This record gives sequence, structure tokens and C-alpha cells, in this order.
Amino acid sequence: MSIVVMKFGGSSVADADRIRAAASRAIKTRKQGHQVVMVVSAMGDTTDHLVDLAGQITPAPPKREMDQLLATGEQVTISLVAMALEAMGQPAISFTAGQVGMVTDDAHTKARIRSIDVRRIHEQLDTGRIVIVAGFQGVTEEGAVTTLGRGGSNVTLVAIAAALKADVCENYTDVDGIYTADPRIVPNARKIDRVSYDEMLELASLGASVLHNRAVEFAKKYNVPIHVRNSGNERKGTLIVSETQDMERIVVSGAALKDKLARVTMRNVPDRPGIAAKIFHTIASHKIVVDDIIQTTAPGGAATVSFTVDLGELADARKIVDKLAAELRCEVVYEDRLAKVSVVGVGMRVHTGVAERMFAALATEGINIQNITTSEIKISCLIDREQGKRALQLVHDAFELGGRKVKPKATRKARK
Amino acid sequence: MSIVVMKFGGSSVADADRIRAAASRAIKTRKQGHQVVMVVSAMGDTTDHLVDLAGQITPAPPKREMDQLLATGEQVTISLVAMALEAMGQPAISFTAGQVGMVTDDAHTKARIRSIDVRRIHEQLDTGRIVIVAGFQGVTEEGAVTTLGRGGSNVTLVAIAAALKADVCENYTDVDGIYTADPRIVPNARKIDRVSYDEMLELASLGASVLHNRAVEFAKKYNVPIHVRNSGNERKGTLIVSETQDMERIVVSGAALKDKLARVTMRNVPDRPGIAAKIFHTIASHKIVVDDIIQTTAPGGAATVSFTVDLGELADARKIVDKLAAELRCEVVYEDRLAKVSVVGVGMRVHTGVAERMFAALATEGINIQNITTSEIKISCLIDREQGKRALQLVHDAFELGGRKVKPKATRKARK
Repeated sequence: MSIVVMKFGGSSVADADRIRAAASRAIKTRKQGHQVVMVVSAMGDTTDHLVDLAGQITPAPPKREMDQLLATGEQVTISLVAMALEAMGQPAISFTAGQVGMVTDDAHTKARIRSIDVRRIHEQLDTGRIVIVAGFQGVTEEGAVTTLGRGGSNVTLVAIAAALKADVCENYTDVDGIYTADPRIVPNARKIDRVSYDEMLELASLGASVLHNRAVEFAKKYNVPIHVRNSGNERKGTLIVSETQDMERIVVSGAALKDKLARVTMRNVPDRPGIAAKIFHTIASHKIVVDDIIQTTAPGGAATVSFTVDLGELADARKIVDKLAAELRCEVVYEDRLAKVSVVGVGMRVHTGVAERMFAALATEGINIQNITTSEIKISCLIDREQGKRALQLVHDAFELGGRKVKPKATRKARK
Repeated sequence: MSIVVMKFGGSSVADADRIRAAASRAIKTRKQGHQVVMVVSAMGDTTDHLVDLAGQITPAPPKREMDQLLATGEQVTISLVAMALEAMGQPAISFTAGQVGMVTDDAHTKARIRSIDVRRIHEQLDTGRIVIVAGFQGVTEEGAVTTLGRGGSNVTLVAIAAALKADVCENYTDVDGIYTADPRIVPNARKIDRVSYDEMLELASLGASVLHNRAVEFAKKYNVPIHVRNSGNERKGTLIVSETQDMERIVVSGAALKDKLARVTMRNVPDRPGIAAKIFHTIASHKIVVDDIIQTTAPGGAATVSFTVDLGELADARKIVDKLAAELRCEVVYEDRLAKVSVVGVGMRVHTGVAERMFAALATEGINIQNITTSEIKISCLIDREQGKRALQLVHDAFELGGRKVKPKATRKARK
């Protein structure tokens, strides 16, 4: 008998009706002859509510206690889902992470899974029950409750599917799947049928928020295909799978826009070994997440070190960099009106001219490129924020990602 | 170093301010040099909210899942209390029942404690931490979450205090202690300084709601003195302790009123062995709780079987008794406007004339007694509900339970 693991995010279990809908969907799968495991998140805005409660007590709650608190959100959902299934005549049993032996390290609020004892899940599946497992949480060897950090329920989904050697791993959300671009910005964005783990990783770090990177990394490591689909309809969603050769026929799979970026540029940095390390060590030690780094060295010897951060982190970064710049006697320029438009696709590895096509598309409307960063399967351009949304549409059209045909423009020549 | 176990009920941890107040109190005790364990309930109306959530899913939730759901209430409180303590500079750690090895049987929603593994509590106390334990919950040997039923947090308090051989066991509530009568009905009711376990057991089953019987039974069994006190002030409350000889000097410790009672009277019941057993077995098998039973047999042979139930149970009882009466060919009378006034005191064992004094007090205002039931330390009179509150005041005054002097009345003669 095949095993299907289905995960329902917070919006798919936000109230009694949606819990019943999720339960119905699981029962339907069960009736098709599969063994079914459900992984569920906290209902709707429960987690926000709990974070707010902690905030009323202290601005800096101990992480162990924060985890003890937050884990109650998923525990509420698992019991309600089990009740809904039983009320519909389907035997069911709920398990917290502790009850199912989901053992993690003790890095509270961002714990990593070490092992899962699936014996108890198999026992219950074999009696015909649907098993509901609390997402997002774990326990240490000593029994302390941990949480898995942002996107943690998806990590639970993939970990359970991998440990059970499940045949299908479904991630139910409130969208139809992964899109070629954010449909709120690009109206002709199209749902992608299949995307590779690596493409998904790039898209996720560029702002596509459906799946968090840790879950995708986990899925890639254990080769678990994830089917991202809409809990509100029966349509096929997006399959996130291992890369196959035919995927390379598609040059670009998706485009993304990361808005609200700021850039810090340090000029005349002494070009000595260890200077860049010092700069970024200092910044990292203040928990500031750096997006992209570009360093150039003039023939004379002094270097220009430039990096981007989320706009929200600029104020903090500024305090640190101002000090550093004084120490190193270099100039600093801060820019706070930037955005980054990117294209992602494993096909870039075998196709040439991708960068040129992207630059040409931006040039048609005079969008100035302020920085370029690339990986093997990604090209990103830093541009003025005002032009971000328009740039995403232009790039999306240039690679013909849209569902509808768009008129060819003069710049399409660049493709040739 | 002595160990103090302090329990804070739902109203004493209902919001962030009250959680901080409870934490301050615990810190004060810690600074006096004691090791401190806090047992806490769910915040305010959290449990009601969770019950309501389950009710939106199904009218008859599986008990295992109900326990999984309800236990989150206390888990939220323990983490918030630990956060509050840490924010005040006091090292603290929270434990769910599972984390502290509070093992129960698997009678979900009314589980009984089998064992507590106090090793982990001692370890943490020895590091100087305040330990916060979730009340009301347990785990089975297999790790399923259970709850201990009504008043369960007090059972946790007493069980933890007994297992730790604690020196002091404090139950913080929103009242000053146990009163000679309900102060909302009897304005001159006085706080009792000391009351025996047996008296408390009688008072609790007669409607004094501060402590549930199971907690008191547990305390009696392990001889744990409980100090019931107000979390809002520093006053001494009521000590619930083993009976001592000097307690018998006080004839009556308290008076109680159980309102909203109904009486079922079956007349001409065949006076054969096993008939009463059949009647009450049938009623119990329908989960109807019978209050008092009185059976009288006329010289002719037919018996009158009479019993009281909570008014809320009358409709259910009626359905069953009507059938039974038809089967046994006897008459039934239902009365739904009754109340029961009682006096309780270990002194009754050695003092005479207590019943007479009570009856005389009721007679002064023409209150008719419809049934009398007694135990070694209790006398109860069934009366008309309309007269219940007045009867409680009369009895309270007759035994001079009030704090203020009351004018002697003609009826006081009956005392002599």
C-alpha cells in the first residue's frame, strides 16, 4: 500500500470549515487505497497571537520557552483535525513531535532534525488510521520542545515523507503552485508544472515564498518530490523534483523580484588580504544578513566593496559600517531605493545569450543596471526600485514565460 | 533547603500583569531561601475557548484528542511564566507533564496519577532555577497526553508537593481562603483559619468550589497541608490539614447551600432485595449523578425510594425513571424547586444537640425540612429553594459562625 504525506499550511486549517475540508481531502486519498499522513501548521494567525502574548511579557523571551509556547499552535490543530476525521467516520490519531520521536538538536527556534522514529506512525497507519503530525516542532534527546524555524512545517513534511519512504508528498497551500513570476505583479504569470530543487532554491531565496529553502534542501538531499497544490481546488500544482535532462530545454523557468533592497558601497578600501573577511565578519556578528557582495579592485590598489541588504536592516548596518569605514579610512555610500530582478533556469547551463537577452529587455525602457550577480542557473540585476515591477514584466515577457502570447518587440532581436 | 510548591489558578494568571504578579510572588519566596516550584493552570477562559473550538468541529470529540487539545492551555501558561521570571532576572524552566514524567492511567479527560519522576525537578531546583509545571495534565506510559478532570491543577499541586516532600504547598486563588459560608450569600461569613481534610471534603461536595475533592483526598492520603490564599494580597489564608484533637472544640466549621436541586420520589416500590440496586444501577449507567438517597419502608411492605439530583440532570433522569416506574408499577413524583442547606464540623462527633440547633434555627422562620441526611461530620436539610439563602444565613448565625456579633434571637434558646 502506498503512503501519501499531505501538508496543510496555516491558511488551509484557519477555521473549522477549512479543517473539515482538509479532512475530506485526506479521507478521499485514504479511500483511494493509500495510507495517509497529514502534517499541519498552526491555524491562521495563531502563531502571531502567541508571539504577541510573549511580547506582552518580555521583549527578549528565552528561546527554549518561546519554543514551548509556539509548539502549542500546531498541537491545537492536530487534535482538531483528528476530531474532524473521526466525526466523518475516519479513524485518526494525532501526534506531537515528541510523541512521534521527531528528534532535533537543541538549537531552539531553528532546530535541525536528527532522526525520526517512524515505528509509531507505521503502527497506526497499519490499523487503518490517518495519522496527523504536528509540523514545525521537534524535541531534543532530553525532551525539550524545539521549533524548526521559518518554513518549519514544510521541513516536517519532507522529513516525514523521507523517513516513511512515502510515494507522494503533497504541500497544500492557498495558491495553485509555483509561478513563473509573482502573479500580483505580472498578470500573465503562469503556473510552472515542474521545477528542479535547485531552481526552487534560487527562486525561494529571490523572494518566492511558497517553500522555504530548508525544506527544499531537505527534499533534494533525500530526493523527495514535492507536489505544491491548492487546498481549494483539485488542479495539479507544481512538482518540485530532481533535475532531469529535458528540463534544460527550458532556458528560464521563472523570474523574481526582490523589492526593498539597500546597497552599501565602501570605496578606497585598502586592498590587503583579510580586509573583506574583517568587514563581513563584523557585519555577520551583528546578525545582519547580506544579500549579494561585489568587490572590484582598481589597478592602483584600493578596492571597492559593495553589498546589498534588506532595506529593514540598513539602519543597523549603517551603524556598524560607519565605524568600520572610519577605522579603514574609506568612503561609504548608502543607497536605499533599489530592487533586484532575476531569472532562474537550469537551461542556462547549456544555452548562451541569456544574460544579453535580459539586459536588452531592461534597456528597451531605459532601465539602468547598477550591479549584476550570477550563479550557474541565475542572473540578477540590481536596478532602481521605482522600475522594479516594470522590469519584472519586461524580463518575464522577454523569456516568453507568460501564459498568453505577448507582442514581439524590437528588442527581441537580442535573442538571436 | 525547604521546598515550596505554589499553585496559581486560571484567574491568577489571566493576563500579562497577573503573570508578572505571580512571578514576583514566587521570586519573593525564592529570595527567602526556599526552592520554589510553581504549578499553573490555563490563562483565564482559555480552556473554555478550546472547548468551544472542539465544539465547532464535532459535538462528541474523541477524549484522547480532547486531552491533546486542552493540555495546550497550561503549556502556554508555563512558558509565559518562565519568560516573566527570566525577564525579572530569576532563572526558570518550564515543564509539561510529559517532560516531568507525570505518568497517569489512560482514562482520558479524568486520568489518575500513577507516578511522578521528580529527578528532573530536583536537578533544576538545585541549579537555583524556579521550576514551572503545567497543572491539570499528565501522560500515559505510551506518551499520550491526558488531563486530570475538574480541579485537576490542584491534584497536580498536591501530587508534586507529595512527591517532592515539600515543606509548604500553597494554592493561590482570587479569594482569601475557605469561608464559613459563601460570602455572596452570607455577608458576615468569616474566613476559616484551619479546616480538616474531611471537613473540606464535605464542604467541597456541598458546593464550596475552591478545592475539588480529588485534590483534597490526595492531600489527605499523603498528609500534605494545603494553604489556600489570595494571590492579590499577603494575608494568611486557610490551612487544610490533618484533623487534630483541638479541632473538635469547634462544633461547626462551616455551612453550605446547594441550590438548584430536584427530587425524584418513587412510591410503592416492591420491597424486594435488589430493587434499589436495579434502580440506581440504571441511573448510574446513564451517567446521572445522584446526590442523596433516602429509602423508607412502610410496615405493609412497599418502599418509598427518594433521591436528589442537580436540577440540570432532572430532564435526563425523568426519561429513565419514567420507564423504570412503568416496569416496577410504582408512582413517581418529581419536584424541581429544592435546595439543601448543610453544616459541617468534626466537633459534631463529640458535641450533642447540633441537629436540634439547626432544625430550631430553620423553624424560627417557618422553613419546612423535607429530608434530612447526615454523616459523622455533616447534617443536611432539604428545603424549598425560595428559602435557601435565608436558611443558610439562619444556620450560619445559629452556630455563631459569623465574624461580627449577631443579635441574639428568641430561637437561640434551642442551643442550650
